[in-house]
Amino acid sequence: MGRWEPNARGRLEQAALDLYSERGFEQTTAAQIAERAGLTERTFFRHYADKREVLFGASHALEELFVNALAATPDTAAPIDAVASALEAVAALFLERYDFSRQRQAVIKASAELYERELIKLASLSAALAATLRLRGVRDPAASLTAEAGIAVFKIGFQRWVASGGERALADFFRESLDELKAVTAGG
Amino acid sequence: MGRWEPNARGRLEQAALDLYSERGFEQTTAAQIAERAGLTERTFFRHYADKREVLFGASHALEELFVNALAATPDTAAPIDAVASALEAVAALFLERYDFSRQRQAVIKASAELYERELIKLASLSAALAATLRLRGVRDPAASLTAEAGIAVFKIGFQRWVASGGERALADFFRESLDELKAVTAGG
Repeated sequence: MGRWEPNARGRLEQAALDLYSERGFEQTTAAQIAERAGLTERTFFRHYADKREVLFGASHALEELFVNALAATPDTAAPIDAVASALEAVAALFLERYDFSRQRQAVIKASAELYERELIKLASLSAALAATLRLRGVRDPAASLTAEAGIAVFKIGFQRWVASGGERALADFFRESLDELKAVTAGG
Repeated sequence: MGRWEPNARGRLEQAALDLYSERGFEQTTAAQIAERAGLTERTFFRHYADKREVLFGASHALEELFVNALAATPDTAAPIDAVASALEAVAALFLERYDFSRQRQAVIKASAELYERELIKLASLSAALAATLRLRGVRDPAASLTAEAGIAVFKIGFQRWVASGGERALADFFRESLDELKAVTAGG
């Protein structure tokens, strides 16, 4: 390992996001990201496998938090309420991340390759939630459908939050989206 | 255009599926698919842009049918009931396609590249359904969440159908999955 670079991952992430916003994902190289961050290309590849992965560094932490929060809710909670409480925990991850999240979302929507990666991460998250619900004794198809409902609320709530201006917390958008999902599936 | 080849698309599709099952998607070329189908490589590329697309030739027709069926339901139907009736129409597309669908699903799950393409198609389908609901006067987030609910039912119902042995119709699995989604979001 080379010398210690303070907050190398965060600096690479922000540099990548800025370059993808300015010139597009396709037109940016790992070397340029490293240079913008004041680091070497070698340091880039010590932290990220490729220039796609640099925007998904937090995905593993997100999945872990989501799954652990779901597993930690009392067994007596209905599956959908357990998912709602896990969404509250997940929202806390984004408290100081509004500008970053909005910029990241715009970059991902502009690149088919990044958008594909985002969809894969969400599908993996859904599978992890369903597996956790099964461990709580929820059967299929209830486990899979509750997980899909949670991911739908996550996706739409997140989209609305990044489009909102950032005055209100992500947790509000998750709650609203879940209430709306309940209303529409009830036929309201 | 060359001479007319009877059912070239269907033959290429089945040949691709067989080769992907036998030796894997990565290890198969367009030339091999054409050869197995008794056609030329040139014919392959007249019908499909690449060897990934050959398994998604019906996606456009599926999206069109789904959207048209949704648009055709009476305006008085609740959005989720309109989606349920569109799902019935979609299920009819698969009446004689059980073996093909099961084989296709296995091949897609085995290749990251094909799985990404499948997820993109589902996301595009969800966006098209939400747009159709907005045209019916459904507001957001209800339109987006109803569309996501429809896609969740489509995904899970389809997965359960291909795993089932094929005795029962896809429409049954769609109905059961929607009922279960309603039950879980109601907190049952």
